Amino acid sequence: MDQNKIDGLDSIFYPKSVAVTGVTQTPGTVPYDIFYNILASGYKGVLYPVAPGKKSISAVKAYRYVSDIEADVDLAVIVFPAMVVEKALEMCGKKGVKAAIIISAGFREVGPEGIKREQRIKDICAEYNISLIGPNCLGVINTDPTSMLNASFARKMPSEDRIAFLSQSGALCTAVLDYARGKNIGFSKFVSFGNMAGVTEIDLLHYLHQDEKTDVILLYLEELRDGRGLMEAAKKITRGENAKPILAIKSGRTPQGADAASSHTGSLAGEDSICDAVFREAGIIRVNTLDAMFNAAILLAYQPMPAGNRVAIVTNAGGPGVMATDAAVSWNLDIARFEPKTTAKLQESLPAVANIKNPVDVIGDARSDRYEAALDAVIKDANVDQTLVILTPQSMTDIQEIARGIVKVQEKSNKPMACSFMGASDVQVGVDILERAHIPHYILPELACKAMANVQRICKWRQTDLTDFAPLPVDKAAAQAIIKDLPKGYLREDQALDVLKAYGLPVPEHKLCKNADEAVAFAEKIGYPAVLRVISPQIVHKFDVKGVALGLKNAEQLKKAYEDMVAHIGNVLPEAEITGMLVRGMIPAGHEVILGAKRDPVFGPTLMFGLGGLFVEVFKDVTFALAPIDEGAASRMVREIKAVSILQGARGTKAADMAGIEECLRRLGQMVSDLDRISELDINPLLVGPAEQGSAVADVRIRLDG
Amino acid sequence: MDQNKIDGLDSIFYPKSVAVTGVTQTPGTVPYDIFYNILASGYKGVLYPVAPGKKSISAVKAYRYVSDIEADVDLAVIVFPAMVVEKALEMCGKKGVKAAIIISAGFREVGPEGIKREQRIKDICAEYNISLIGPNCLGVINTDPTSMLNASFARKMPSEDRIAFLSQSGALCTAVLDYARGKNIGFSKFVSFGNMAGVTEIDLLHYLHQDEKTDVILLYLEELRDGRGLMEAAKKITRGENAKPILAIKSGRTPQGADAASSHTGSLAGEDSICDAVFREAGIIRVNTLDAMFNAAILLAYQPMPAGNRVAIVTNAGGPGVMATDAAVSWNLDIARFEPKTTAKLQESLPAVANIKNPVDVIGDARSDRYEAALDAVIKDANVDQTLVILTPQSMTDIQEIARGIVKVQEKSNKPMACSFMGASDVQVGVDILERAHIPHYILPELACKAMANVQRICKWRQTDLTDFAPLPVDKAAAQAIIKDLPKGYLREDQALDVLKAYGLPVPEHKLCKNADEAVAFAEKIGYPAVLRVISPQIVHKFDVKGVALGLKNAEQLKKAYEDMVAHIGNVLPEAEITGMLVRGMIPAGHEVILGAKRDPVFGPTLMFGLGGLFVEVFKDVTFALAPIDEGAASRMVREIKAVSILQGARGTKAADMAGIEECLRRLGQMVSDLDRISELDINPLLVGPAEQGSAVADVRIRLDG
Repeated sequence: MDQNKIDGLDSIFYPKSVAVTGVTQTPGTVPYDIFYNILASGYKGVLYPVAPGKKSISAVKAYRYVSDIEADVDLAVIVFPAMVVEKALEMCGKKGVKAAIIISAGFREVGPEGIKREQRIKDICAEYNISLIGPNCLGVINTDPTSMLNASFARKMPSEDRIAFLSQSGALCTAVLDYARGKNIGFSKFVSFGNMAGVTEIDLLHYLHQDEKTDVILLYLEELRDGRGLMEAAKKITRGENAKPILAIKSGRTPQGADAASSHTGSLAGEDSICDAVFREAGIIRVNTLDAMFNAAILLAYQPMPAGNRVAIVTNAGGPGVMATDAAVSWNLDIARFEPKTTAKLQESLPAVANIKNPVDVIGDARSDRYEAALDAVIKDANVDQTLVILTPQSMTDIQEIARGIVKVQEKSNKPMACSFMGASDVQVGVDILERAHIPHYILPELACKAMANVQRICKWRQTDLTDFAPLPVDKAAAQAIIKDLPKGYLREDQALDVLKAYGLPVPEHKLCKNADEAVAFAEKIGYPAVLRVISPQIVHKFDVKGVALGLKNAEQLKKAYEDMVAHIGNVLPEAEITGMLVRGMIPAGHEVILGAKRDPVFGPTLMFGLGGLFVEVFKDVTFALAPIDEGAASRMVREIKAVSILQGARGTKAADMAGIEECLRRLGQMVSDLDRISELDINPLLVGPAEQGSAVADVRIRLDG
Repeated sequence: MDQNKIDGLDSIFYPKSVAVTGVTQTPGTVPYDIFYNILASGYKGVLYPVAPGKKSISAVKAYRYVSDIEADVDLAVIVFPAMVVEKALEMCGKKGVKAAIIISAGFREVGPEGIKREQRIKDICAEYNISLIGPNCLGVINTDPTSMLNASFARKMPSEDRIAFLSQSGALCTAVLDYARGKNIGFSKFVSFGNMAGVTEIDLLHYLHQDEKTDVILLYLEELRDGRGLMEAAKKITRGENAKPILAIKSGRTPQGADAASSHTGSLAGEDSICDAVFREAGIIRVNTLDAMFNAAILLAYQPMPAGNRVAIVTNAGGPGVMATDAAVSWNLDIARFEPKTTAKLQESLPAVANIKNPVDVIGDARSDRYEAALDAVIKDANVDQTLVILTPQSMTDIQEIARGIVKVQEKSNKPMACSFMGASDVQVGVDILERAHIPHYILPELACKAMANVQRICKWRQTDLTDFAPLPVDKAAAQAIIKDLPKGYLREDQALDVLKAYGLPVPEHKLCKNADEAVAFAEKIGYPAVLRVISPQIVHKFDVKGVALGLKNAEQLKKAYEDMVAHIGNVLPEAEITGMLVRGMIPAGHEVILGAKRDPVFGPTLMFGLGGLFVEVFKDVTFALAPIDEGAASRMVREIKAVSILQGARGTKAADMAGIEECLRRLGQMVSDLDRISELDINPLLVGPAEQGSAVADVRIRLDG
């Protein structure tokens, strides 16, 4: 991130002075509230209201124009109606204002007129080097005590915390602030970034990566405007020494949701499965709901990272222990098996009727001493990576004492812990103690398990081997030469095969032959058995017109097949003009896999992979990636499908040539990145044998753009 | 349900007098608390403490023995330690007490000693006709104003409501009561039924079906002790004129959870996928968490049933509208398409920037009038079955007024509604208004959608065509004759085929031939091509020893194959004793499906169905049922697998003979119900062709018990 951008964002989060332009005197309206929120939030700099015609706002001297302010202004918050924003921004530029937050709506999201308006805003920002948040947003909050800025129309300033929240939706922000307050969660920075006419979510991620006040970043998106950029940025932020977890909601997951999002933001959503791929390769943990997001965030912000996925559960109620076990296991957490010495300790300190296996049941009449003893024992167990403490409010349960005991044990531990004091009012006294001690609390144990499972996704990502993209040697010029002068539409099969061949894909030797003799001559060269495939611009589905002949063993069979095919097609599809026949050898049987590529209007070139036939159609068992892909991404892509076990040699069969598939995907990725006329490509199937046999392209379709 | 059971349960829920036996004077202990809870709950009958050696408990005259009480006692609540319970119960029996609740633990759940103790309790109940809840439970609560009984050690009496809760786990109950109170949810009846030594969950379901105070039944189970009984009972309760929805959590879903459950209750969990089948056929809606359960329960209890699955969403924030749309669609709800007149009305009453398509966005500055107008319009739309109202707390949002407006609109409507006022503290004033008006409120819109989706499961169940079990004509005697004298273990293939044949399954004509000539003679009779399959007690996997020959076209080929096979097996497996060869005709190709049956230790005979090969192994795409099954259940079973579209004719192929598969399953179900020596059976595969061709058993294994 360049210094100019950092300086701009510093001016947004840590301005020495702020002018609010367009302030009114009416409480309960956005223009007034924003001004008042800055005034009341304890802001450490100087605040200037710009309100033409007013002497003061809430006793603070008001200015007619921003240019009238006698001192420098770092940040302008613009709340004028959309029509006037341009003028106000220009005046800010002339004044030398470094950054602006445009709260006003009425831009890109309202259609062509607004798009033009937004472009003019962009131009002004570029001209005067203004760092811009918005337009169409709720504003910015920075709880850092050195700034204490609530430049938003959110009613209350959140408390200081280690969690940052970024949102494309402004309206969501008020709900999130209120929701978080209800759970005693605060924020480090809170940004409603709106239309991203200036600062983007990617800029903000980079900035927060360096922000010492932020440990966890939460992100709400309705579009991935620059999926590739987000992927590259997040990959750096979520890994390495200063790694910070990013949890994101990307709404518009379903076609109906995407429709709603686009009518709401004027943005194109892009294929959701490709969003998944972007997040996977970015190390962003995608969640679908605010509670899943915050439930994981508090565990990440308040507790250490676990060394592994083994959970110990301590409970005073069997039923919830069972439910927690179910939840943990179904989300791929392991139920820790205790060391013998732990079991011995538990046996010693718990009554005979207690369950000393994991989940440990300290029994309904347990008081704080029993909880502490059990917890202390399991936390010290080398097989335990994290603990979950469950409490139900029984008659004997000294809720506060137990909470204090838990805090005491946890203070001495460096393993993460989560608690679920089940209920609502009765347990609240205990929950307060836990929350003050920053031990994450969940109303149900299942929610704690889900949060732990999301943390595991981050651990797993951090352990993933990342590779750099290294292009494979290909003959780009040859491929370009083939397609250069071709019209829009599908490539002829032999040309499509030649393009693949230029990129090093395993294509069988083949030739387009104009007559039976030529076909025989070529077959003699490559050896029998041979395959004949009709080539005709009018024939898309060769099998429908019996346009394929397999396993032709000699010249005689080949010749006959050639003639029969011409005759048959002449009968059933007389309008078909037969260009010739593609002759090639037989391809050994193998697993049918599909490799696809497509130019997505939002994401650019993308790749698809799946097992052939019914697996794709019935089970939708496919994965995607942005092209090109590196070695690591290819490996993850292939291993992400559910049916991967089939390729790895389920049912006692030999493992398929996985490395070969991965290489094909990498070559294909390179190809669709290089050759931007290719709009769609399907290798269906690639026949994959065991490693020593390798793979071969059995059929391919390539479509060119105009 | 017989009158005796009803009378017994009446004595539990509506006793005219209650004796608490084993009361102490120490508040904070179970024996005192139970007594005090009845005293303080406003109980409408007479309460007697039985406390040897005490004159009074909390100013109420105490008795040495229950027999000392001068009047009749309907219900005894026994809180003595386990060792003394038997004695106390016997005294109750002699006194003529009609019902008892044994709170004390220390029975079945503690092992062999406890099991014996529990049996003695059962015997006493049988002898004196005592209706018994427990032991090892929290007690019983009835909020009916005519009874007002809190015979439990739960701290507070819940408010009266239309929801009943039944729990096998006592410890969970305190958490549930506190949790529900936090959401302003009350109960009609609340029962912790513990070890079910007397009254079972099935008895309670029948009772609640007739209970005028109950509309919705919630059930927490850790075992299905009588899955078949539960299925039959629930089927009656969840359908018909007085239908009441049942929502259940069955914990121990995972093997690890089941382990934990069995070490906790001493109960066997049974295969979880069979629990699923039981619930499916019972019409019980299975959920996994308490919040899913209560979220659906309030919608069922407080709102009418929807006519269909089409939802209208009204929101003041785009983002949450998109997230709600995603959630709704991913749970199979439809986003309603408005009628033109609705669109016109919305256009008229909302500002130009509002979104008048579903989800309707009334925009952040909406006040109550806009919400009311939008809601009124969409609720009246014939394409809308239910509405979801979302609110985020913006500056302009008059939360209380909007809540009141929503209530006003909803009062005139007969379609269900749910609301999500997102946040926590700011929105609480509105939430209170909604909850008082019994409009279900959810902290996130996604939770509302999930609740609506669970309600849809109930609607769908009510529309399901149920059929009665009608046995198909089979030759049970013939099958019995075959297996009668056979030893434990696998049946010989020809015998297994004969058993299937007796039950009318489509078995190819076959014969066990002792030599090549016999084989030829039989093949000539049934016609070529023929199949040879070696029969030997030592050979389990025929293909491994080349023990199968297919497509033998004439006597010569058959004879040669016979001799070659004998020779080959003599070489590779000299110890194999060859009984002979099974000769049969070729079976036409078709879809490979697997039909299985198994005697489950908990559920008895069960059936399994799935598509052959990888579908079962990789995707675990199988369904189960308790045997026998009726027509409807067979149809549901076959249609429950994900791959059913393949059988229905995906990829333009002909639909498979679904009716044939269903009949096979029904016959198989009848067979394993009739022939209880069969412990395991696999038809793998049944080859299924199109309807006119039908199915044929290609391979079968049947295992007999000793």
